[in-house]
Amino acid sequence: MSYDELLAKIKDANLLRSTASILSWDQECMMPPGGVEHRSLQMAQIAGLAHQRFTDPRIGELLAECEADDELTSDPASEQAAVLRELRRGYDRSTKLPADLVQEAARTRSIAHHHWQQAREESDFDKFRPWLEKNIDLARRVAEAYGWADGEEPWDALAEGYEPGMRARQIEGVFTPLRDRLQNLIADLTSGPRRPSTRFLEIAVPTGEQRAFVPQIAEQMGFDFERGRIDISVHPFCSGTNPGDVRITTRFRDDAFADALTATMHEAGHGLYEQGLLPEHTGTPLGRAASLGIHESQSRMWENFVGRSLPFWEWCMPRVRDAFGSAFDDVTPQDAYEAVNTVSPDFIRVEADEATYNMHIMVRFELERLMMSGELVAADLPDEWNRRYKEYLGVDVPNDRVGCLQDTHWSGASFGYFPTYTLGNLYAAQFFEKILEDVPGLHEEFARGDLSSLKSWLNENIHKHGGRYQPADLCERVTGKALSADPLLRHLERKLRPLYGV
Amino acid sequence: MSYDELLAKIKDANLLRSTASILSWDQECMMPPGGVEHRSLQMAQIAGLAHQRFTDPRIGELLAECEADDELTSDPASEQAAVLRELRRGYDRSTKLPADLVQEAARTRSIAHHHWQQAREESDFDKFRPWLEKNIDLARRVAEAYGWADGEEPWDALAEGYEPGMRARQIEGVFTPLRDRLQNLIADLTSGPRRPSTRFLEIAVPTGEQRAFVPQIAEQMGFDFERGRIDISVHPFCSGTNPGDVRITTRFRDDAFADALTATMHEAGHGLYEQGLLPEHTGTPLGRAASLGIHESQSRMWENFVGRSLPFWEWCMPRVRDAFGSAFDDVTPQDAYEAVNTVSPDFIRVEADEATYNMHIMVRFELERLMMSGELVAADLPDEWNRRYKEYLGVDVPNDRVGCLQDTHWSGASFGYFPTYTLGNLYAAQFFEKILEDVPGLHEEFARGDLSSLKSWLNENIHKHGGRYQPADLCERVTGKALSADPLLRHLERKLRPLYGV
Repeated sequence: MSYDELLAKIKDANLLRSTASILSWDQECMMPPGGVEHRSLQMAQIAGLAHQRFTDPRIGELLAECEADDELTSDPASEQAAVLRELRRGYDRSTKLPADLVQEAARTRSIAHHHWQQAREESDFDKFRPWLEKNIDLARRVAEAYGWADGEEPWDALAEGYEPGMRARQIEGVFTPLRDRLQNLIADLTSGPRRPSTRFLEIAVPTGEQRAFVPQIAEQMGFDFERGRIDISVHPFCSGTNPGDVRITTRFRDDAFADALTATMHEAGHGLYEQGLLPEHTGTPLGRAASLGIHESQSRMWENFVGRSLPFWEWCMPRVRDAFGSAFDDVTPQDAYEAVNTVSPDFIRVEADEATYNMHIMVRFELERLMMSGELVAADLPDEWNRRYKEYLGVDVPNDRVGCLQDTHWSGASFGYFPTYTLGNLYAAQFFEKILEDVPGLHEEFARGDLSSLKSWLNENIHKHGGRYQPADLCERVTGKALSADPLLRHLERKLRPLYGV
Repeated sequence: MSYDELLAKIKDANLLRSTASILSWDQECMMPPGGVEHRSLQMAQIAGLAHQRFTDPRIGELLAECEADDELTSDPASEQAAVLRELRRGYDRSTKLPADLVQEAARTRSIAHHHWQQAREESDFDKFRPWLEKNIDLARRVAEAYGWADGEEPWDALAEGYEPGMRARQIEGVFTPLRDRLQNLIADLTSGPRRPSTRFLEIAVPTGEQRAFVPQIAEQMGFDFERGRIDISVHPFCSGTNPGDVRITTRFRDDAFADALTATMHEAGHGLYEQGLLPEHTGTPLGRAASLGIHESQSRMWENFVGRSLPFWEWCMPRVRDAFGSAFDDVTPQDAYEAVNTVSPDFIRVEADEATYNMHIMVRFELERLMMSGELVAADLPDEWNRRYKEYLGVDVPNDRVGCLQDTHWSGASFGYFPTYTLGNLYAAQFFEKILEDVPGLHEEFARGDLSSLKSWLNENIHKHGGRYQPADLCERVTGKALSADPLLRHLERKLRPLYGV
């Protein structure tokens, strides 16, 4: 049967991709420096074999046969229809790009990345400008190859690869009120009469002791170490091959215990999603996350709605004291809660707090949308960047190194990716309001260290569906409403205003 | 050019094999238990792709073209001629086995292994006997498919896969005098008037402290941690993908510090060989070890000729005292030297000492040769096994669990492998005599902790050649003599007789 043959071929291709995932994890976490050159050959070989399989014309034939089969497609809500929808999307995207464009893009990206590194080091945008121009041009050609529907725009064609079905216009409809009201909130907080306690952040904890403690928090969240592991990498990430083997990483610094904790909760949130996918769907679209934005909703939920909540700290603080002794004797749960919720507008995205983080994303979304439509040229990027940081966050960007050169994404011609970070925050807030409706005693459970209701709810309502629903549909299905800025704003207002006395 | 195309195809196939090596290392050292099922799919996929490539008929065509090209083959000592010799050997062996035999063997092996485990647990040979019969039959059919020359025998066809060019008759010529003289030596030692000190072995060292110390010894040997790493596994091994990424493992037990140390030196000896191969030959026969026996000569050289030497302990003992404090205050280098050189005939191969170990191997060599020629049937194995243990080692085997059921090899139909262990000891001894000729002050260097002359000699005379020479040719080339039992016997006699006062 065509459907079975199609699934077998897709599983075969995804099996190779899962091997690439191990090679990549190993490179980040285990491989000695001397292995780099050989590893790049291994990765290229596996990527090439996977690409061959995903673009095999036989997949196109089988897809067409299945799509013509009423039994498979008559109910668009069926599992088979969802599988075919996602396979069609993937196949079209894999086959629409001409091979010479793929090669040119890969070559240009790699050189552009090098020039970006240099430009950033020297804070000299002009060194990157010609390569950003090339990357913009390439991304626009890629977008053209993918194509977009009437009323859509080039940026949409790129973002479709990260957030299926989501369009710039919809995002704008949510981001605009978010931006305006966040701008007010941040201005209020920074001029408020009170400052949260930061005592908790000032206590150094030896790295070795953090390493023993932090996995216990992941375990408390329900991360299953029989089906996963935790390691160290420069940039924390979540990876793995199937629900039985999920790998998260974190990082440690003596003077940044809170960072290790939040990074771990963030990645374990991703990890719970991966462990919560159904093993019988491994290698099919139902066995993977719905989108990057939904994935990020899971990490941000645990990082922000658990790890930055007062009830969590009421449970966690005594454990911190037990683990690290007298240094934390005088630190209360309220101290820790305040410390991890300070808000300070700054230039650097990856160091931003829960409120200002979204502003960093919205600046990038607005700018890359303009670059993709041709309304903004590379040469004007620094000015436009700095103007928005002043307007939205009230900060003067001192130079391009901490300004428009800070992120690697555009050096790799990745346009359309940034919004998934804020979409994750928005989904998380909207899901969490629903969870509190369904489990009214949730915060009391947190205060007892019982995080199981939250995990079960996510398993049942999000994880087990994998990629069956497009993100916007999943949001409607789960919360009964379209995505909105309101839940996130309510969450931030309620939490942050009291801490700043406004 | 055919030769270049051939090499490119072989490198491509070996690149896949190196990915399989990472998957396998990861499974042993890193993978969580939940990953087993998916990993077996990944391994099967990569193995299948590699097999396809190694048996590609185009390789046969290219080989034939190259072999007909005088420029490539007129000088049999040239690199190209060596490459072609090894590729021909590999291609013939990969393509001579009918697919149904390969499948039947894999199926039978996996069931036989299961029955062997049960039989061993219950010490009930009869439970394994029918499966051993099947494995013998299969191995004989495999040998027939490979074929053997006039004057050779079925066992040779199997051993060729592990020790190219080595034949049972040659091995017998070396093993027989070794066995006879070892038998005398062991009898003399066990009845000698003196017993070596074992104080060193009786001191417990916390695992955590061993883990900090042991890698320093590997580093002292010259193992390069920029191009390698050391981890923990149940059975120590050496693995990796290329000279830039070599991975060894060891194991730790509080009451077995000496075991961790010798296991580490053994595996680091393998690791130095892999790190000493020339990177420009990666993926070709010149970029891999000459044979399992030669590989084992490297591990045994470091384990026995360094790690069980008095000069080494003169350097090492003060370091042990520095690392572990007062427990070792009264232990002298001589104590350690004696402790790691005790000889005690016993039933279990993997726990055997440097002298009796070879007896265990020779019993197995004799028996599997008879099973392959049809002169010994499975039902008679236990009696023949026990008779030889009594005769060669003077021990009464109490049951089949610690007798003929102790090793896994025959349950996997691996016949022809065992002798490489003793061949390794023989090569090591013969190489070491030559090294002492070339570097007369070697032991004085050891006593200063300077192991660099030994490493350089091995790099230059063994490692850099990779698989260019067949093991017997390498031995002749390096030592000027054919392989002989004399150097190993001289080494053991000189070292052990004084310790036992005989």
